[in-house]
Amino acid sequence: MKATELLSRLHEGDGRALSRCITLVENNSDESAYILENLRINSHCKVVGITGPPGAGKSTLVNALLDHYSQTEPGKKLAVLAVDPTSPFTHGSLLGDRLRMNEHFNNPNIYIRSLATRGALGGLSARTIEIADVLKAAGYDYIFIETVGVGQSEVEIAALADTTLVVFVPESGDEIQTIKSGIMEIADVFVVNKADREGADKLMKNLVTTLHERPMSGWSVPVVKTTASTKTGIAELALFIQDHNLMNPDNNHRKELLFNRAVRLVQNQLLKKVNLDQFRTDLENAETASGFNIYRFISDRLG
Amino acid sequence: MKATELLSRLHEGDGRALSRCITLVENNSDESAYILENLRINSHCKVVGITGPPGAGKSTLVNALLDHYSQTEPGKKLAVLAVDPTSPFTHGSLLGDRLRMNEHFNNPNIYIRSLATRGALGGLSARTIEIADVLKAAGYDYIFIETVGVGQSEVEIAALADTTLVVFVPESGDEIQTIKSGIMEIADVFVVNKADREGADKLMKNLVTTLHERPMSGWSVPVVKTTASTKTGIAELALFIQDHNLMNPDNNHRKELLFNRAVRLVQNQLLKKVNLDQFRTDLENAETASGFNIYRFISDRLG
Repeated sequence: MKATELLSRLHEGDGRALSRCITLVENNSDESAYILENLRINSHCKVVGITGPPGAGKSTLVNALLDHYSQTEPGKKLAVLAVDPTSPFTHGSLLGDRLRMNEHFNNPNIYIRSLATRGALGGLSARTIEIADVLKAAGYDYIFIETVGVGQSEVEIAALADTTLVVFVPESGDEIQTIKSGIMEIADVFVVNKADREGADKLMKNLVTTLHERPMSGWSVPVVKTTASTKTGIAELALFIQDHNLMNPDNNHRKELLFNRAVRLVQNQLLKKVNLDQFRTDLENAETASGFNIYRFISDRLG
Repeated sequence: MKATELLSRLHEGDGRALSRCITLVENNSDESAYILENLRINSHCKVVGITGPPGAGKSTLVNALLDHYSQTEPGKKLAVLAVDPTSPFTHGSLLGDRLRMNEHFNNPNIYIRSLATRGALGGLSARTIEIADVLKAAGYDYIFIETVGVGQSEVEIAALADTTLVVFVPESGDEIQTIKSGIMEIADVFVVNKADREGADKLMKNLVTTLHERPMSGWSVPVVKTTASTKTGIAELALFIQDHNLMNPDNNHRKELLFNRAVRLVQNQLLKKVNLDQFRTDLENAETASGFNIYRFISDRLG
């Protein structure tokens, strides 16, 4: 199929065209630039990021949210991108054992896709933002992006998501003390999942007392208790997501994110003009000379 | 002082010139390109990365290693770069309380510097590699770089360090199961610190049984028990660092790292030719138009 045809089917909401477009973008194939540059990106689509340590039950929470939105907003199109190497969404081999969302796989309004992570320990795939844009063009109303919370990926998801959920379990108590400052900047909503376990109330209390109203935004970060496996607390969580979405977005922050993203795209675009094979050969030859200095090498080369 | 003068003092090992050069590079000031391009980088210097979760005792371990090398290799120049937001090296306010390396601050052969982290949860500062190069040019023999192990920074430190220590405490047991695959690729030596606590042997055993010889390198990742606060196990750890340094480096891997680094430098250099203020204004204007597509905007702009 031609890219023009593919794109028009994508915009009509065709599922196979969507999968094909995502694959083309994910693999950075020849058609990917054409596709991206001609996407009609729906701005009404909401991106919900779900991050937290391994074992916090993020996938089960996503599953419960899919259930909730399917029931309360029937007809809405929901997508899941799993960028979490520990997620049952991403582990083919574990699917039989752990995947609890078979029902959703057969729902034509729900699209689930796992994406390869960038680093060994996670981090958003460079293509995740672009794939989210493809989903927006395909008419999705909500995109849930699940990542494992190991630092960089949390920061990246906060940049991509309209609302970021940071999920903990009662056992996470100690962890939170040490990474508090980072988490403060990222979370729009805190979720204490597996809240039927011991320590949930203590963790709730700790989170609430360490939270302050986020500067400049006027949004008080709520803490919600859920037990995703029994769908407990999900409706309340969905209300907070809605509240957060209705809030006036922090426009300066949004502009900054857009600028950073554009700069990264510019860098990638500029790099396309460099013959990297030749560059690699020259670099390896230069390096064997005594007194090699990488900064001078680059400077001499680019002038 | 002129940059030429500063640089020649740096190469003579002058401490104040070193601090000044690092500050210039860290702030990306005008002189920084000249300094970097004219560094005489000693290739004999060894970089040891120390990473692991908050509370693993990384700073205490670095302190113990400083002690060890000061005693066993007197006259060698040792440097510490702390990029860990939870490190007592980086927290001015906590210095009085927690810093145990006062002795080292007065040792002219030891240089300690904290660096701002990039993301909210850590990650190497973009300048860390450059600052390590400045230290190499100043004649340092060992550079210890402490980072908090939260994902991306671990991958980055593995790219920068000759030897990467991944530090755990007995309580880290559960964590390791879930992030095993990532850690496998990064660690050159595993350290079980605070090994006087309960669970150390069990963690040791778990680590050893999950470890396999790393493909293509011929290096069996050892697991070392330490109690850094009492300097227990430090000599053994130092031996493993030495062994790893004596090993034939994986040349393809090293070339790949050099290439990746050069590409990043090229990207930054190319970006300097873009008027970013103008770019930002144009971007913000373009974004308000209906049907804004960031990919097309970039493409139109760069041609």
